[in-house]
Amino acid sequence: MITDAHSHVLALDFGGTKLAAAVVDIQNGQILAQQRQATPAEQGADGSIKTMLTLGRQVLKDCTLAAPARVGISFGGPVSGDCRTVLMSNHVPGWENVPLPQLVSETFGCPAAMDNDANAAALGSWWYDAHREPDHMVYIQISTGIGAGLVLKREIYRGAAIAGEIGHITVVPNGPLCVCGKHGCLESLTAGWAIARAGRKALENAVHGSPLWQACQGDADRLDARLVIQAANAGDPTAGEIINDAFSALGIAIANMILLYDPQTVMLGGGVARAQREMLAVMEPVIERELHPLSKKRCKLQFSGLEGRETLLGAAHLPL
Amino acid sequence: MITDAHSHVLALDFGGTKLAAAVVDIQNGQILAQQRQATPAEQGADGSIKTMLTLGRQVLKDCTLAAPARVGISFGGPVSGDCRTVLMSNHVPGWENVPLPQLVSETFGCPAAMDNDANAAALGSWWYDAHREPDHMVYIQISTGIGAGLVLKREIYRGAAIAGEIGHITVVPNGPLCVCGKHGCLESLTAGWAIARAGRKALENAVHGSPLWQACQGDADRLDARLVIQAANAGDPTAGEIINDAFSALGIAIANMILLYDPQTVMLGGGVARAQREMLAVMEPVIERELHPLSKKRCKLQFSGLEGRETLLGAAHLPL
Repeated sequence: MITDAHSHVLALDFGGTKLAAAVVDIQNGQILAQQRQATPAEQGADGSIKTMLTLGRQVLKDCTLAAPARVGISFGGPVSGDCRTVLMSNHVPGWENVPLPQLVSETFGCPAAMDNDANAAALGSWWYDAHREPDHMVYIQISTGIGAGLVLKREIYRGAAIAGEIGHITVVPNGPLCVCGKHGCLESLTAGWAIARAGRKALENAVHGSPLWQACQGDADRLDARLVIQAANAGDPTAGEIINDAFSALGIAIANMILLYDPQTVMLGGGVARAQREMLAVMEPVIERELHPLSKKRCKLQFSGLEGRETLLGAAHLPL
Repeated sequence: MITDAHSHVLALDFGGTKLAAAVVDIQNGQILAQQRQATPAEQGADGSIKTMLTLGRQVLKDCTLAAPARVGISFGGPVSGDCRTVLMSNHVPGWENVPLPQLVSETFGCPAAMDNDANAAALGSWWYDAHREPDHMVYIQISTGIGAGLVLKREIYRGAAIAGEIGHITVVPNGPLCVCGKHGCLESLTAGWAIARAGRKALENAVHGSPLWQACQGDADRLDARLVIQAANAGDPTAGEIINDAFSALGIAIANMILLYDPQTVMLGGGVARAQREMLAVMEPVIERELHPLSKKRCKLQFSGLEGRETLLGAAHLPL
């Protein structure tokens, strides 16, 4: 199975809720071994690093690989413009100014490179899902939060440091409150947490036995984005409105991205994007209405087929 | 005065309302000779080309220059992704698929290169106003229309063809009708024509003798963006609201651009941007409110100091 050790990269994905390590064969995008674990957030950055190094050693062992050729790191939070330092994490304390690639490089005795998770996922999608065809591609991850990774002129574009902050562009002025303190950001309408929040609020006035009530048996704590979408599909009018607001906002944001970046491909990934059918039903007419005639049809809208593997696959390409 | 003929570039700017030709010394950004003329729109593309070639020969003669080293062309409308063909003009008929650089190159017997006017202006501003300091710069031209030119990684970024279409991103969903047929585009609130339109509508109910009425002596046909701004400055509350809506929308759009491109500089040019004081008074608190803490203060907001010369200066750099 292992044909060329030089193509074997150790990929480490530091997420806010989970840590994942894998050995990736970058010649064909195969994941040869993988380990995942919940992020021990209460143990801070040190605990995450320690756990991740153990996962990393484990996947190397699983592949009977003494040492990786390189290590690629994806981090779920902002990193510095030169990609050498983690700036912070919104989920785990103690990540301020940690020189993570250097630590990892010293541990495994090989070069290591890092980027944020949206950029890593964009790179993975561009290589293995878009097959490096588009010169310019916008990847949008819609899960708990919403972020974008930009492949422009066949390279990751990060601006001074954190370009692609699509989650916090204002889509509806004076709209719902966002986690960032602003109102009407894309996240405040379309992120997993925002759909769940709107669902919980609607549940307060929901009729006992309505599809929304049934989806969670009246228990607000159980209500997540997936269940709100399910209730909308079952004909719940309030859940339908929530989904309509969420995916209309996404349609406007995507149209704006197409007008601003003029990419050949917009790729959608992340947990919420699994509701592909529901998303398209709302979004397509919005995008059709929002786009300038010259931009229409030049850009392909595509859903990720990598089922969450794009981040690890992209991380593996970072040290090249 | 003329020291090195190789640094002398003929710059041609095809605008919807005016044509301009200049000889530019690209070593120092000096315009050695310049000629302008109203665009003979009724004579179509052929008439514009003929007039422009005459202007070009005239400025060469004014500099006693037998032939230019190169010709740079700025076009006020979309051009093809490879910059070899004009796609169309919104102002002058007959520009569909015209191979303008080839025509110009054959006429003057030297290489010629073209881009749209927003990209040319961005390049001119980056060279001679930002002095090539920012690696990433967004140039926004706010005049009759609104467009952006993007210098990313020290080069013009154009996407598949026409990236930077900031004028038609939706800023206020269901907002005012735009020339493009959509509602709530940035142009529909902030372009010169939109400010004038809102002023003319307000004039219908304006009190005789109010600052708005006085600015145009009650004559709607005389009311332009400059006069609406003047009325707002004179304390007219309705004109004040129009300006507030216009520049708040611009503030949101600029904040969105900073979140998406993470540039070191945002440069504002064009006629409406001459109202620098009025713009900043409204925009600064909006941008402050809209920006993610990590983006704040990393980006410099600058007004063009080139007084409209940026397009010709940038055009001169296109054939390099």
